[in-house]
Amino acid sequence: MSLITNRRDIDFLMYELLDLDQMLQTDRYEAYDREAISAILDTAQAIAEDKYLTCASELDANEPTFDGEKVSIMPEVGEALKAFADAGFFGASFDEDVGGAQLPGIVNFALAGFFSAANPGINSYAFLTIGAANMLNAVGSQEQKDKYLGPMLEGRWFGTMCLSEPQAGSSLSDIRTKATPTDEGHYLIEGSKMWISGGDHELAENIVEMVLAKIPGGPPGVRGISLFIVPKYRVNDDGSLGPKNDISLAGLNHKMGHRGTTNCLLNFGENGDCHGYLVGKPHEGLKSMFHMMNEARIGVGQGSVMSALTGFLYSLKYAGERSQGRHPQDKDPTKPQIPIIEHTDIKRLLMAQKAAVEGASALLFYCMDLVEQQKLTDDKNEQMRLALLLEILTPLAKSWPSEFCLEANKHAIQILGGYGYTREFPVERYYRDNRLNHIHEGTHAIHGLDLLGRKVSMHDGAALNLLMAEVQKTLAEVAGETSLKEYATALTGAVETLLDTTKTVKACENQNIQLANATIYLDAFGHVVVAWLWLRQAQVSVNALKTAEGDDVAFYQGKIAACRYFFRYELPKAVTQFHLVADLDQTCLDLVPEQLIGSNPF
Amino acid sequence: MSLITNRRDIDFLMYELLDLDQMLQTDRYEAYDREAISAILDTAQAIAEDKYLTCASELDANEPTFDGEKVSIMPEVGEALKAFADAGFFGASFDEDVGGAQLPGIVNFALAGFFSAANPGINSYAFLTIGAANMLNAVGSQEQKDKYLGPMLEGRWFGTMCLSEPQAGSSLSDIRTKATPTDEGHYLIEGSKMWISGGDHELAENIVEMVLAKIPGGPPGVRGISLFIVPKYRVNDDGSLGPKNDISLAGLNHKMGHRGTTNCLLNFGENGDCHGYLVGKPHEGLKSMFHMMNEARIGVGQGSVMSALTGFLYSLKYAGERSQGRHPQDKDPTKPQIPIIEHTDIKRLLMAQKAAVEGASALLFYCMDLVEQQKLTDDKNEQMRLALLLEILTPLAKSWPSEFCLEANKHAIQILGGYGYTREFPVERYYRDNRLNHIHEGTHAIHGLDLLGRKVSMHDGAALNLLMAEVQKTLAEVAGETSLKEYATALTGAVETLLDTTKTVKACENQNIQLANATIYLDAFGHVVVAWLWLRQAQVSVNALKTAEGDDVAFYQGKIAACRYFFRYELPKAVTQFHLVADLDQTCLDLVPEQLIGSNPF
Repeated sequence: MSLITNRRDIDFLMYELLDLDQMLQTDRYEAYDREAISAILDTAQAIAEDKYLTCASELDANEPTFDGEKVSIMPEVGEALKAFADAGFFGASFDEDVGGAQLPGIVNFALAGFFSAANPGINSYAFLTIGAANMLNAVGSQEQKDKYLGPMLEGRWFGTMCLSEPQAGSSLSDIRTKATPTDEGHYLIEGSKMWISGGDHELAENIVEMVLAKIPGGPPGVRGISLFIVPKYRVNDDGSLGPKNDISLAGLNHKMGHRGTTNCLLNFGENGDCHGYLVGKPHEGLKSMFHMMNEARIGVGQGSVMSALTGFLYSLKYAGERSQGRHPQDKDPTKPQIPIIEHTDIKRLLMAQKAAVEGASALLFYCMDLVEQQKLTDDKNEQMRLALLLEILTPLAKSWPSEFCLEANKHAIQILGGYGYTREFPVERYYRDNRLNHIHEGTHAIHGLDLLGRKVSMHDGAALNLLMAEVQKTLAEVAGETSLKEYATALTGAVETLLDTTKTVKACENQNIQLANATIYLDAFGHVVVAWLWLRQAQVSVNALKTAEGDDVAFYQGKIAACRYFFRYELPKAVTQFHLVADLDQTCLDLVPEQLIGSNPF
Repeated sequence: MSLITNRRDIDFLMYELLDLDQMLQTDRYEAYDREAISAILDTAQAIAEDKYLTCASELDANEPTFDGEKVSIMPEVGEALKAFADAGFFGASFDEDVGGAQLPGIVNFALAGFFSAANPGINSYAFLTIGAANMLNAVGSQEQKDKYLGPMLEGRWFGTMCLSEPQAGSSLSDIRTKATPTDEGHYLIEGSKMWISGGDHELAENIVEMVLAKIPGGPPGVRGISLFIVPKYRVNDDGSLGPKNDISLAGLNHKMGHRGTTNCLLNFGENGDCHGYLVGKPHEGLKSMFHMMNEARIGVGQGSVMSALTGFLYSLKYAGERSQGRHPQDKDPTKPQIPIIEHTDIKRLLMAQKAAVEGASALLFYCMDLVEQQKLTDDKNEQMRLALLLEILTPLAKSWPSEFCLEANKHAIQILGGYGYTREFPVERYYRDNRLNHIHEGTHAIHGLDLLGRKVSMHDGAALNLLMAEVQKTLAEVAGETSLKEYATALTGAVETLLDTTKTVKACENQNIQLANATIYLDAFGHVVVAWLWLRQAQVSVNALKTAEGDDVAFYQGKIAACRYFFRYELPKAVTQFHLVADLDQTCLDLVPEQLIGSNPF
């Protein structure tokens, strides 16, 4: 049993819930068939298990250090990334014409999950590099692409995203990093960037920092932000490395989890000589950055799901091996103890993990499919439809897993009991790793504001209408299936509540009141979407069960059981929460700080 | 602003929610008045802030180590415990006739909270010593008390509780540690004990391990368990220390949090010469242990509340100091950023913490008052009434905080954002510390089984009836108060749902089905009890507001706002959960392991 993936579920998502077979018929993917894809996933899984998983615990206990000169990292990290690079995985999802393998997006997504599950600390270096390369590929000039893309796709140069500053985390409009134009084509960059994952290290020959900065004289706020390439080592015209750029590592942050990735405070231009190269047009940096933001956010969602998946698998294995206690109806102490998986509450904790992990996985794969389908169609209307669906689902794809897959990791610890609370077992590490995902790539609250304040009403509610049309399509399809009726009825009711709530909130003219409970709306909305995707998984499984054989019988029965669990144990919570949001409650909005402790706390 | 206590709230709990003034009129507490109590709490707070809080972060980063011979711990730990001992706090709650200070129980409880909030890793040594001394005082022979109690109350000898073994954590009936009688009065102890907090160290002159073991020939299961004193150093008749007993430290566990406390695997009698002394009668060890269990469990609840309280206070302070972003209705980037406490979602995260912390505090103080009132009355019926109330509330006092105050700590991290996720700030440590509390002193699931399987039906439902009578009393008292009507109505409905659910479940004859969702019942029941205590706090506050002046106005308004928050944001969740329990859902009970991943996982 693998501890980082359930390959049967990956196949289910790709071939049964989604239609990868049909995708493989397109010209774009003619190089691939099921067998080839399976072999690629085998290779990825083997590298993840052999090179990533094996050092995950040690890396957590031995995080990177900085002696004022250089960053030191356990050698296993470099070796793992070399194996990843040698297998061609840095460029796997890129088009052949830029040197990629042109692997279908959802396959590449499945593959990336293995590494994230096995060792998120190592995986971040590759994840960020691929993201930066993706952005460069989308918005860089031909010259920039020629210069930087090749070494990045080969995994020789790494990439980063430099957005936050000490005084500007969530509020990007307040960044102060300055980019002053020179006569020589480059800009001089000056400022400090905070929370830069992979910002400095010796793992790669070069680091391509993608930096947001303001060109003096531009408009205030986010409209005055530009995007720059700022390499650690300047790059000569022939692609060889020039002198070190004026970037210095001011210090490393020491995180609760994700300890394997350097997380840096970087100072740019302390000596007035930090060269940066404008990407795209001046003042359009945020647009360029957002170009890749949806995928980055789905990636964060994946990180969360993968921490939960590996916790689920580990705690499942443990629950079969550990004996403790007896059934309530047969407590005879002279009989042997039973494996704890026989205790109903342990089953509940496992089922809760399965429901969260596989529900969130379905959401993420669905989102990646939307990204992919946009590439495969020339129909502008269809592209717009897919893009709008992706827009409204992205805050959920990022946020729902970070809340509910963290809860799953909490359950994994509980199954292991006292052992689970020790660093001798990995589940507490997964829990620590996963706590990050509410925070980065937009906090939980920001995605609530994005969803309720923007996404549900964008283009006159077009995105919301399109999503609801998808849900209605499923409901229509399952209408005749008696065994799914309970869930179809519950989903119909939940969707009505969601729409009523949205309408009530939007009718309120005071924006502060309207958005006062946006985070709760976000969580509840996510529950409805995940419930829909559980119903879809059950729909596929009910049909497949008619002819299923061998292990597949239990697999499909498990899908239907998890759907039942989600609808009975989880979805009702969302309906309760929507009622609260619809009440436009101002308890929190009206709170004054003095009331919190009975005196001025500041 | 203190980061470990809100003294105004302590006074509210002791003098306004409970009636400490009336208690101080009794002969038992004639030595104390409000002023004396305030001075004692001042002393405790000062020691906790000066000696405990100051080294909490360093202790977390430098946990105790074991070189195979001895345990090494940062010297600050010993110094802190010395200050605690010098202030007389080991014996504070004990009667004067055994050398204690006879401090009222709820005052001692308030005092203990300061140390738990400031540094739970250090506090555990004292907490366990006081617990062991308490048990000895209750069930030990006069000779045993004479020998051991004095040095423990002086804080020169420490105590532990040795229950679990590697193969017997939750299932105490499966312990194997053997106690063989000898002709010389002592028993020979042989076996291994796991998870022993404070099991070995050099902080005290001696360690009194309270060990559960089985005398050969006794009945199987928990009916064959006896309790023994097993000192690290044997004690001569004159109270001086004799030779080291045959106990060896096999190793330390390395926990996710609570790192300051040694957590040990202890081997007893490896050389066949471990002396133990029977406490109470043979085979009645569990009864003796349970004698102290209620208070120990309330103590665990307190640990959880205190981790959450300090996270609440820290994140409140931070929210006033950190500026970020702007209001939804005024996003002009040329204006300065606002303190994040002005963002509604930050207020929500603070309010959620307040509601959990002060709701749980009220529950714990109420429970300690029940313990206390039993000492103050001679009326057997009243004692029985108080004891039954304590019986039914204990699983909630232990479990509700461990679930919902952990959630509070999650919120504190969220308020600090990226900073909160680093070890440079303390809130991630509080979160790690608090994750333990679901697990020790009976797992969350076990308390669910205890509540639904035993406590609600004990003595023909007498405990449940008594608790409901208390709730009805409050409801009757607030009936005329219009401003509380919304909450009284909601609580009336929730109580009905609780009782209907309990009846439905109890009517089911299959015990496995009956208890299948006991954990969910536990959480929901806790919500109803905490809602009741919030209504009581609001009731007191509404009355007090009529004459309140100065800071008290905000204080009472805050209590009423938190009551509103709890009733609107939290209580409806419990009603939803009760419906699930009443459905006698078997989704989890029926689950077979193969369904979890689609093949046999073992």
